[in-house]
Amino acid sequence: MQYFFKYNWKVREEWYHWCENLSEEQLLKNRTGGVGSILYTLFHIVDVEWSWIRLMQDKADYQEDFIHYQSLNKVRELDAQFHIEVENFVNQWDTSMENRLFYDTLSDGKIVTDTWGEIMRHIIAHEIHHIGQLSIWAREIGIKPVSANFIGRGLIS
Amino acid sequence: MQYFFKYNWKVREEWYHWCENLSEEQLLKNRTGGVGSILYTLFHIVDVEWSWIRLMQDKADYQEDFIHYQSLNKVRELDAQFHIEVENFVNQWDTSMENRLFYDTLSDGKIVTDTWGEIMRHIIAHEIHHIGQLSIWAREIGIKPVSANFIGRGLIS
Repeated sequence: MQYFFKYNWKVREEWYHWCENLSEEQLLKNRTGGVGSILYTLFHIVDVEWSWIRLMQDKADYQEDFIHYQSLNKVRELDAQFHIEVENFVNQWDTSMENRLFYDTLSDGKIVTDTWGEIMRHIIAHEIHHIGQLSIWAREIGIKPVSANFIGRGLIS
Repeated sequence: MQYFFKYNWKVREEWYHWCENLSEEQLLKNRTGGVGSILYTLFHIVDVEWSWIRLMQDKADYQEDFIHYQSLNKVRELDAQFHIEVENFVNQWDTSMENRLFYDTLSDGKIVTDTWGEIMRHIIAHEIHHIGQLSIWAREIGIKPVSANFIGRGLIS
């Protein structure tokens, strides 16, 4: 489980670096699909990862509003702030936590049950999916996207 | 590891179903980014998954040519054919295989080493990434994409 998080964090860091070459207008421009802009995608990834990790631990999930994070630096700062808590949780993950239950109340009031193992994989797949979307927008802009390769990154020694 | 493969196979099946509403022209239309078309993306996912699974086992990796798979049914048939071998390998995966080494000769002749654990995660991330790309093209066409959610699919009982 930890390896996928490390992969996501590394790829995300490379996307932040990639974004440095873009204007604020390009970062915030409304695009077709996903959550609508490059910067909002990165903000959304950071927010969703942190929120699920908080929810599993029965901690309050503050709803961050993107309106307050309209620059690359602000999103990176939020990420750095959230990352301490997220990394701490991920690092102490072990397989005995796989089957713990989380009761999720949906918007229609219905209560569904997810295992922690499902939630962890949900967080991982969520980020990779949105990063795939960024790679299309990158090509639309005409810039080579960050590699999505897992191999070749030295993630597992 | 198995859960992520099951997730990918389920999501892939839903994309095949989604594709049934598209014309052959829409499926094959050249689009910006990724490998260039919706059908080629699905073909590529199937081909890459199978190839890596073959390579780890020192089996020959036939280079399938997309020119022979220009319809949804042909890609699905290829997938069904490859799936037997892929599923068999994935089902017998256990953590003792994590650190086995694979020596990969790159196009420039350089030899790099990947662990089997890295390759398995590479296959998983590879598919999720490309599916993220499909979701953008879906919105460009004006059709709601398949959900990328891991939770809510009953993948872990």
